[in-house]
Amino acid sequence: MQTYETTLTVRYSETDQMGRVYYSRYLEWFELARAEHLKSAGFPYSDMEKLGLYLVVADTYIKYIRPAKYEETIMVKTTIKEVNKASVVFEYEVFNEKKEMLATGNSKLVAVTKEGKVTSIPDNIRKLL
Amino acid sequence: MQTYETTLTVRYSETDQMGRVYYSRYLEWFELARAEHLKSAGFPYSDMEKLGLYLVVADTYIKYIRPAKYEETIMVKTTIKEVNKASVVFEYEVFNEKKEMLATGNSKLVAVTKEGKVTSIPDNIRKLL
Amino acid sequence: MQTYETTLTVRYSETDQMGRVYYSRYLEWFELARAEHLKSAGFPYSDMEKLGLYLVVADTYIKYIRPAKYEETIMVKTTIKEVNKASVVFEYEVFNEKKEMLATGNSKLVAVTKEGKVTSIPDNIRKLL
Amino acid sequence: MQTYETTLTVRYSETDQMGRVYYSRYLEWFELARAEHLKSAGFPYSDMEKLGLYLVVADTYIKYIRPAKYEETIMVKTTIKEVNKASVVFEYEVFNEKKEMLATGNSKLVAVTKEGKVTSIPDNIRKLL
Repeated sequence: MQTYETTLTVRYSETDQMGRVYYSRYLEWFELARAEHLKSAGFPYSDMEKLGLYLVVADTYIKYIRPAKYEETIMVKTTIKEVNKASVVFEYEVFNEKKEMLATGNSKLVAVTKEGKVTSIPDNIRKLL
Repeated sequence: MQTYETTLTVRYSETDQMGRVYYSRYLEWFELARAEHLKSAGFPYSDMEKLGLYLVVADTYIKYIRPAKYEETIMVKTTIKEVNKASVVFEYEVFNEKKEMLATGNSKLVAVTKEGKVTSIPDNIRKLL
Repeated sequence: MQTYETTLTVRYSETDQMGRVYYSRYLEWFELARAEHLKSAGFPYSDMEKLGLYLVVADTYIKYIRPAKYEETIMVKTTIKEVNKASVVFEYEVFNEKKEMLATGNSKLVAVTKEGKVTSIPDNIRKLL
Repeated sequence: MQTYETTLTVRYSETDQMGRVYYSRYLEWFELARAEHLKSAGFPYSDMEKLGLYLVVADTYIKYIRPAKYEETIMVKTTIKEVNKASVVFEYEVFNEKKEMLATGNSKLVAVTKEGKVTSIPDNIRKLL
């Protein structure tokens, strides 16, 4: 499944003294959205880790367009852009309840073993993605 | 060593939209101060974990007196109040740079194995505390 | 309305290297659950702040019983125990999906103005609570 | 002043269940390092905000090279790459105590008023940067 939409509500702990969501919080939302996306595709990330397969982030880019505010309902749309032998590229679009775009971003995740060695993504998982 | 003083600077990410440090952040500071206290006593917590000894928090109380603000220098004074067979009680006092008390608190930590079973604190560590 | 139940899913960012939810995160969940409770009672906290009414935490106690794990569904039950002229006392019970109790806690919140002066909770809000 | 070095110690709250620092924490370190850099240049960011000048992040890129671990001493080297009329570009390099590079990144910050309107960076600040 290529795209997925996750919704969440902005927590007070996610705001800063500028009265908006602090800029690192979007990466937590991206991770949350990736996890929901994987779960909906049939592979909860917690199951992957039990199998000894970890997805670590190799890089991330994020562009901030409009501030997110406390108690707003946020929708994060994730798209799987590439599935390679040992990596996956996710793209993100973040919207508020008025459908205004708040941020866009992308990140490359690499499959590693518990010891941190790069490894192949199993075929059955790759097919589902 | 019974008491220890740790200083830190308030990070922007620790503030909330009320313009003060968000209330859960003090628990991160308590943990940081405990870690510095243990390190100064000769037992970095990261070494303890390598030995398979984990200290988990059983309970925590915190009283908030004055707000902490961005970029303030904060001092957390930790006092070890009790060392029991399998637990330690820490007390905390938090001050700003004007020596105003911002918060007080305490927490009980219990020694457990990696599997989560309660275990004794080794004698050599107990003596140092 | 006296009690309210809020559910959430444990985020990866909420775990620590012990493989469980870090102990300060429960305070973020408490705050989230209070906000949902107030919203369901007809007073979203974001509206209160627009009226210049802030609820600041005066103290918090938390007892940790069982660890919370990544991707678990968590239910936080909030109970309003006391509503006074300028303060409210919330109690919390945290459960996992097997209905095991993970933590309990309570906190006292005091109504203040933007400048931090203690103020009365308006009658219409007090009645609803 | 073009470059600046900030050191910090990894907190337990910054680790995740993979046993490394969670990927969003680096953005908190970047912000912390920017603030120390500005303070050393003579403009604490808290003073800027008192003057009604806010620096908001327009975009950020981060590349993760090696994991950061609990209790490690981390050095973040910040370099001001560009100072424009209304924006500043920072570059970051993150090292552990063995001088291994853990991450690199950059971000563009835009000067805005409290209301969020883009504004010029005052000449005296621009000169110092």
